Amino acid sequence: MKGTETIYGMHAVRVMLERHAERVLAVSLAAQRDDTRLRAIEELARRRQRPVQRIERQALSKLLGDVAHQGVAAEISPLPPWTEDELLAALAHAPTPLLLALDGVQDPHNLGACLRTADACGALAVIVPRDRAAQLTPAARKVAAGAAETTPIVTVTNLVRTLKLLQHAGLWVIGADSQAPKPARQVDLSGPVVLVLGAEGAGLRQLTRQHCDFMVQLPQLGAVESLNVSVAAGMLLYEAVRQRGSA
Amino acid sequence: MKGTETIYGMHAVRVMLERHAERVLAVSLAAQRDDTRLRAIEELARRRQRPVQRIERQALSKLLGDVAHQGVAAEISPLPPWTEDELLAALAHAPTPLLLALDGVQDPHNLGACLRTADACGALAVIVPRDRAAQLTPAARKVAAGAAETTPIVTVTNLVRTLKLLQHAGLWVIGADSQAPKPARQVDLSGPVVLVLGAEGAGLRQLTRQHCDFMVQLPQLGAVESLNVSVAAGMLLYEAVRQRGSA
Repeated sequence: MKGTETIYGMHAVRVMLERHAERVLAVSLAAQRDDTRLRAIEELARRRQRPVQRIERQALSKLLGDVAHQGVAAEISPLPPWTEDELLAALAHAPTPLLLALDGVQDPHNLGACLRTADACGALAVIVPRDRAAQLTPAARKVAAGAAETTPIVTVTNLVRTLKLLQHAGLWVIGADSQAPKPARQVDLSGPVVLVLGAEGAGLRQLTRQHCDFMVQLPQLGAVESLNVSVAAGMLLYEAVRQRGSA
Repeated sequence: MKGTETIYGMHAVRVMLERHAERVLAVSLAAQRDDTRLRAIEELARRRQRPVQRIERQALSKLLGDVAHQGVAAEISPLPPWTEDELLAALAHAPTPLLLALDGVQDPHNLGACLRTADACGALAVIVPRDRAAQLTPAARKVAAGAAETTPIVTVTNLVRTLKLLQHAGLWVIGADSQAPKPARQVDLSGPVVLVLGAEGAGLRQLTRQHCDFMVQLPQLGAVESLNVSVAAGMLLYEAVRQRGSA
């Protein structure tokens, strides 16, 4: 269907039915499978009054391509990007918000990979500038492996302005930089924080850097100068999750 | 040149000259640049008696393509894969070895990304099975961004056998699994360890899992079931580096 997205896999479909049932337009289950987990998803969908159909496994594979769909897919209405106002409103309901901001990441694959990692670490949203930065293209959605449907992107016109708004809202702005004096483990990431990563190689822009409350360093023991941005995001989000004891 | 590899960037070329000067066949510097860091690399190459040439910046860009070469490149003899015996010999000289093993990772991009991350975290080597697993293709080397020339790949015929040999050599075998009872932070990774990651979705093979001393869990708070394997490697290697206090 036009204007809809397809997600697949038991976990992704179950989470969507549990958290955002209103966005689920249809659930498709492989006719051949009849195990407990699949039946649980079927029952959940019926309880939430979402249409369920049984289709041939081959039809499902044809629809989805070569992915590990586990016999389940769902047609959903895509998650629209958040505005800055929606982000600020959401902060009011998040006890200890964890946000990721990407300063000048150009590659849609990297954006998708960062979204997937942010989702796994329970981040509230991912902030990206509207200009000169990767947007949520079909390629980015594919790499995000379903995370684009649950973890919102916030597209902002001026990243520094947004960081200032977040500081006003009580968040600490933490930037990652290869030249930072302290490793991430020595900085408190257990409170409300926004983690800011720059483009590979270039790093954070000077103006962004100036607005960070703390700069932290990630491991850099080898011959290669910079980490891939999604790996750097993974390490920094992991450190925040570790400090919160919520993993 | 046939049978050689090209690396680029100040950090990568400097590290190669410092650690493996004998493998550097030629250093090329952009004729237009004359800053302190570039001159330091030039001087280091001369001290190590490696040939240095100044070439036009455009020639360098044409040779390397669209990469951040920073005006410096080097032709090197590639790092050959290690045998199991070479790995065991190297362990004798490593006070607290950190190894990464990939069980059935099929995508060369993921292998390259894991190599790059392993390098940044100071891993001694990356172990991959010879069969049904990604090998060090040109695509993998490219994604590794130079790490393939400093962090060796160990190609083994039987991963379980290698893990047993490593256990005999005093290493703990730590597997990552979404169903593991403990988060990584609660398991001691500060000693000699080999971290084992499976393919995305499928995870570790049953036989590999049975030979792990500990299984650990990585953050999984979101809608997406599994992390990208290079991001999972990044988190687990980060945790080991954090516990060692060496970042």
